[in-house]
Amino acid sequence: MKSTVKVGIIGYGTIGMGTAKILVENKDLISKRTGKEIILEKLVDLDITTEREFQIDASLLSTDINDILENDDIDIVVEAIGGTNPAKAFIERALKNKKSVVTPNKEVIAKHGRELMILAEENGVDLFFEAAVGGGIPIIRPLKMGIGANNVKEIYGIVNGTTNFILTKMTDEGGDFGETLKEAQELGYAEADPTADIEGYDSSYKLVILSILAFGAKVDFENIYFEGISSISGRDNMYAKEFGYEIKLLAVGKEIDGNLELRVHPTFVPLTHPLANVKGVNNAIYVKGDYVGETMFYGPGAGAEPTGSAVVADILDIAYSIDAPLNRRNLRTDFDIMNIVDRGEFVSEYFFRVDCADECGVLAAISGILGKHNVSIKSALQKDQTEKGSELVFITHDVKESSILKAMKEIENLDSVFKVYKFIRVGV
Amino acid sequence: MKSTVKVGIIGYGTIGMGTAKILVENKDLISKRTGKEIILEKLVDLDITTEREFQIDASLLSTDINDILENDDIDIVVEAIGGTNPAKAFIERALKNKKSVVTPNKEVIAKHGRELMILAEENGVDLFFEAAVGGGIPIIRPLKMGIGANNVKEIYGIVNGTTNFILTKMTDEGGDFGETLKEAQELGYAEADPTADIEGYDSSYKLVILSILAFGAKVDFENIYFEGISSISGRDNMYAKEFGYEIKLLAVGKEIDGNLELRVHPTFVPLTHPLANVKGVNNAIYVKGDYVGETMFYGPGAGAEPTGSAVVADILDIAYSIDAPLNRRNLRTDFDIMNIVDRGEFVSEYFFRVDCADECGVLAAISGILGKHNVSIKSALQKDQTEKGSELVFITHDVKESSILKAMKEIENLDSVFKVYKFIRVGV
Repeated sequence: MKSTVKVGIIGYGTIGMGTAKILVENKDLISKRTGKEIILEKLVDLDITTEREFQIDASLLSTDINDILENDDIDIVVEAIGGTNPAKAFIERALKNKKSVVTPNKEVIAKHGRELMILAEENGVDLFFEAAVGGGIPIIRPLKMGIGANNVKEIYGIVNGTTNFILTKMTDEGGDFGETLKEAQELGYAEADPTADIEGYDSSYKLVILSILAFGAKVDFENIYFEGISSISGRDNMYAKEFGYEIKLLAVGKEIDGNLELRVHPTFVPLTHPLANVKGVNNAIYVKGDYVGETMFYGPGAGAEPTGSAVVADILDIAYSIDAPLNRRNLRTDFDIMNIVDRGEFVSEYFFRVDCADECGVLAAISGILGKHNVSIKSALQKDQTEKGSELVFITHDVKESSILKAMKEIENLDSVFKVYKFIRVGV
Repeated sequence: MKSTVKVGIIGYGTIGMGTAKILVENKDLISKRTGKEIILEKLVDLDITTEREFQIDASLLSTDINDILENDDIDIVVEAIGGTNPAKAFIERALKNKKSVVTPNKEVIAKHGRELMILAEENGVDLFFEAAVGGGIPIIRPLKMGIGANNVKEIYGIVNGTTNFILTKMTDEGGDFGETLKEAQELGYAEADPTADIEGYDSSYKLVILSILAFGAKVDFENIYFEGISSISGRDNMYAKEFGYEIKLLAVGKEIDGNLELRVHPTFVPLTHPLANVKGVNNAIYVKGDYVGETMFYGPGAGAEPTGSAVVADILDIAYSIDAPLNRRNLRTDFDIMNIVDRGEFVSEYFFRVDCADECGVLAAISGILGKHNVSIKSALQKDQTEKGSELVFITHDVKESSILKAMKEIENLDSVFKVYKFIRVGV
């Protein structure tokens, strides 16, 4: 029986640092829990001189990736550099060298997960990624095991901390998207290039991973319909409040009659729904199973220490079983092929607003177009008379997305309509 | 490698039936997930003739416990009879016969868990009890692993479905405890002898288990200070609403400077706190760790299928690793010895009400006593003038329980005071 387990971390960024910190500071607790000594053996980064918030002993630092990947002492490699290149190549080399891999990297798992899981299986080691979704929230392992006896019917929630931070701030302080993003960047809650977060890529990667686990289905990034939050304005937020909602970026996966509906988009969440109360960088994920019913997992979705906590959970799990022969805990890789529902088939209520001329016929014209496409109106509001004209605001009843898209196009073409703003889906 | 894993269930009650149902109905899904065929081999109960909601093939039923405990084909025993006798003896025999055991039995784990874990370890098999706390919510495994890298600082929440069902109904419909209990019994949400649930025993057993896992400490049932909900009246509920609270039965474990505070009692939960929104038989458990921060786990806390879902999760976990040598996933059994905080040291706000004579001096006398014991008043209310006199209602600021107990005693002895009702702690 191995009594010590040695860990190498690639990447001295936020998560690499957080992981190292926990391994060092909670060393005694961890060895008590696992019955093994878990040792941070090496941390590799191109930059090991810039001062960090948590400073690792210089003797453990290296700029040479081979000090981890070709180091026979190291049992577990933490890949914490993100992106696909060179992360994927590093993970592959580690697995081939019979090292288990832990990664918080949602992009590489969403895009190459199956391939890497098979490689792990072939080499008799583990590939774990608890930190790839939901930051510090234990969600991957509950999906593999905790509700593993269930057919999952739905999985949905808030899975991106940056956008939730921005949306919370916009709701609380009433600002517009651009200025709020800038503040979030200054506070370190959004990256210099915020595209992956704010345009919905990050949430989509996570939805791919959740769907693979929850539905056991082959899901690719290309299967996710996604929108970001960059078009959300202070005005949208104002109306959301007025109608009793809060805008959240949701990731939604549903199994409907054997088909999968997969989408990421801003949503009017009713204030009575607990997701409306998930603030700042927190995440919350609902899982509905055929026997367990509805469960929910909540916690910090980002940050060095919460994410490091999830990385170390994977390290513990590997350490517990390091003497065991390969088992199926990685994940089955014989995914089911399921039909992915086309965007046009989504059904939702929709909120949209229109700038138009202040003429008596406009509302009638718009209503006529909506009716023609079987879009029935739940609420309509004519709010402000501006110098240019009027603003009309609508919430529809449930309708197919193909219908609302056709109606929007026709409304845009009305002479008396100046601008149709992007619709926002309503309801969880 | 074993390709089939055989399960024997002891007890054809709610949970035994739910477990059997899932094993039978989701058989294909489970074997896909685990890579092994998991077979319900035998179900033993004294009564196998009464018709059940889910009827198990008669060939699998037996009244002879030896058909499971002495059956060499059976790998995993599910003990689903509850209580300590004969449950404990059955678990011991199963473990000694090298069978892994899964049990939803909180009482036997709370009272004899350590002893049984050691026995499991000695025999190289697993003893899992995911369903013993939180019904269908995966909470045990996240505590063992998901947040295993953290020192847990607090664990608290709603862990009993029956009392939460009763309290929710009292809040929504305004009834008193007695009549609501009767309705809950008629609906099957409370047992004929409801003592274990309503007097807080069940929540206390669960708090023992959560504390062992969260704090790694030796915690016994006798260490828990507990109160039930049978003294809660419609009038308490009315005042809770008026002050902006909802009454919930909370289980609370806190580590404060190396000491453990462990308590179960009805609590005024602020309506702004998510726990106030946990309705019916649902449970919700908060866990605060030194690195992960605050996480929360929510879902159905009772019922045949949710609880069965958790039992089957344990079966999956054992099946995954059935070929592996013994590992430490059971739990470390070298518990830390921690000081348990005495009831008198608890600090809280307190709500209490007093029936008294309608005289001008009473409020002054009560205030005087409170002041003498350093109990400062946050809110006071004189509500109804009855024929007998007045009702005075107080909420205090934070104060030590020893002080409020002394003050209550003196107030009771005032001539003009007819009755002092049991206080309720305020705040989460």
